[in-house]
Amino acid sequence: MIIVPEKEIAGLIGRKESFEAVENVFAAMSRGDAYNFPVIRENIGHADALYGFKSGFDRAGLALGLKSGGYWPGNEAKGLTNHQSTIFLFDADTGKVKAVIGGNLLTALRTAAASSVSIKYLAPKNAKVLGMIGAGHQSAFQMRSAVEHRDFDKIIGWNYHPEMLSRLEDVANELGLPFEAVSLGQLGAEADVIISITSSFDPILMDAHVSGGTHIACMGTDTKGKQELEAALVGRATVFTDEVAQSISIGECQHAVADGLIAESDINELGAVINGNHTGRSSEDELTLFDGTGVGLQDIAVASAVVDLAVKNGVAIEVDF
Amino acid sequence: MIIVPEKEIAGLIGRKESFEAVENVFAAMSRGDAYNFPVIRENIGHADALYGFKSGFDRAGLALGLKSGGYWPGNEAKGLTNHQSTIFLFDADTGKVKAVIGGNLLTALRTAAASSVSIKYLAPKNAKVLGMIGAGHQSAFQMRSAVEHRDFDKIIGWNYHPEMLSRLEDVANELGLPFEAVSLGQLGAEADVIISITSSFDPILMDAHVSGGTHIACMGTDTKGKQELEAALVGRATVFTDEVAQSISIGECQHAVADGLIAESDINELGAVINGNHTGRSSEDELTLFDGTGVGLQDIAVASAVVDLAVKNGVAIEVDF
Repeated sequence: MIIVPEKEIAGLIGRKESFEAVENVFAAMSRGDAYNFPVIRENIGHADALYGFKSGFDRAGLALGLKSGGYWPGNEAKGLTNHQSTIFLFDADTGKVKAVIGGNLLTALRTAAASSVSIKYLAPKNAKVLGMIGAGHQSAFQMRSAVEHRDFDKIIGWNYHPEMLSRLEDVANELGLPFEAVSLGQLGAEADVIISITSSFDPILMDAHVSGGTHIACMGTDTKGKQELEAALVGRATVFTDEVAQSISIGECQHAVADGLIAESDINELGAVINGNHTGRSSEDELTLFDGTGVGLQDIAVASAVVDLAVKNGVAIEVDF
Repeated sequence: MIIVPEKEIAGLIGRKESFEAVENVFAAMSRGDAYNFPVIRENIGHADALYGFKSGFDRAGLALGLKSGGYWPGNEAKGLTNHQSTIFLFDADTGKVKAVIGGNLLTALRTAAASSVSIKYLAPKNAKVLGMIGAGHQSAFQMRSAVEHRDFDKIIGWNYHPEMLSRLEDVANELGLPFEAVSLGQLGAEADVIISITSSFDPILMDAHVSGGTHIACMGTDTKGKQELEAALVGRATVFTDEVAQSISIGECQHAVADGLIAESDINELGAVINGNHTGRSSEDELTLFDGTGVGLQDIAVASAVVDLAVKNGVAIEVDF
């Protein structure tokens, strides 16, 4: 059994490898070569924790595994990350456990990779303004990854707590880009690409806010009841997702489907665009939306890449198990 | 993170500790202090494997975890066990992974412990004849554990492949007890306690086979469609189980419930007997049945005990994770 502790992850894998792993597995999912198992998510009734796992199997890459973990709101006071994740990989030929990998940084990397894959395939080619909604821990990962896929010349942002916008400004400045804190109306009007990554249970970005040929990567909604966009905005977009089943049940599309504004059959797999089976954006004026719900196969894909890199770089801990 | 490899398990835990762990967690489940999460079980479409996980949380013991694994029918030809299990424990206060434990021997021990807990609480006090149906890998564990809870003077057995009965005879002889291969009719008529542990999809033990105040521990049925007992036999027994939800969906009771012979409300928790909230057997002539479906909390309970023993005995491998 190979062990790759959390502290080694940053030295092993970056945005490029994460992007490739996620792009490949979205393509495999759409070809039917990879599928996710049902998600387990439980309010355990202790420490206010939400715990669960996401799992799946990529038959093409023979990658079988699960990510276990959840949200422990009291962790920060103990000097720990509130989100705690560990990824376990199994040998698809024998069922024996193969590797245990720290999953905290990988979760941020694979989530940023997903929105970036959507930007690569769906954003307007000449996108210049990136709009960020949300300024939490993952927003920095999202921004760093997004700017590698279009030639942005400005970043604008909004957050429920404006005092946290300094995070976005700091990262934008590191990237050599100007940053401006804006209203949601200005954000929706000016941004060519919008990334929303919040834990909101009420719509933040409204239909009337958004004009023009925008691409929205909606990355925060991963639970029944969560919502970042007004359903009417989803209703008039060409909609793509990582996994349709999750999109309509726990993703952003749950609300537009419930309101009868879109049908399940209106939701396209991003993998179909990667595989050339869907044309993606058809004009610069089109409104496109990526509903990134987060699937276990993303975790398995980046963790598999990390294990290979850890072995290659001599930092994998081997335990006779 | 603590690691306890499969090869260390036999030296750390035996029947006594497994029995106590399972008895305690059945009691905690019935008090509402511990609960199992939904079971994931998937035919992964590779190597004919069935893969999945069972998981749960014991709030009383703060034991949170999952058993991952499954059945790989091609393993035996590679010199590996077909059933492959690994148990993962998490810190209930922070969500961090706490331990990785080999789960193969523990699965056999916790399953034998479950039927033995049922024998302790439900079998006739003066039971003398133990009847075994099934002679696979787990049958030996079942027999060794069962004989510790009643003063049996004879073991009788039946198996679909009679040539495998030598396993039962060998173990009985080791235990100093005579063994006799019998017909199902003779087994049902003579045995005071019957343990069935097969992977059958058709009823083996029929209603007409069984007479008198028998206790049946039905341990093989853990999947939709599996069946060891004729539904009418279940229908006339006083029925107990580890978890009612599993009993009616994937356990032996699925068939009697589907046939309308018993209702969900007729099925009692074994934990209620342990806690003194159900009297259990009311007379020596009663037919009692334990539907042992196998729950994640059993795995978590024995694995937690193993981790404590491994630390105490200095064989736990500690990895800075």
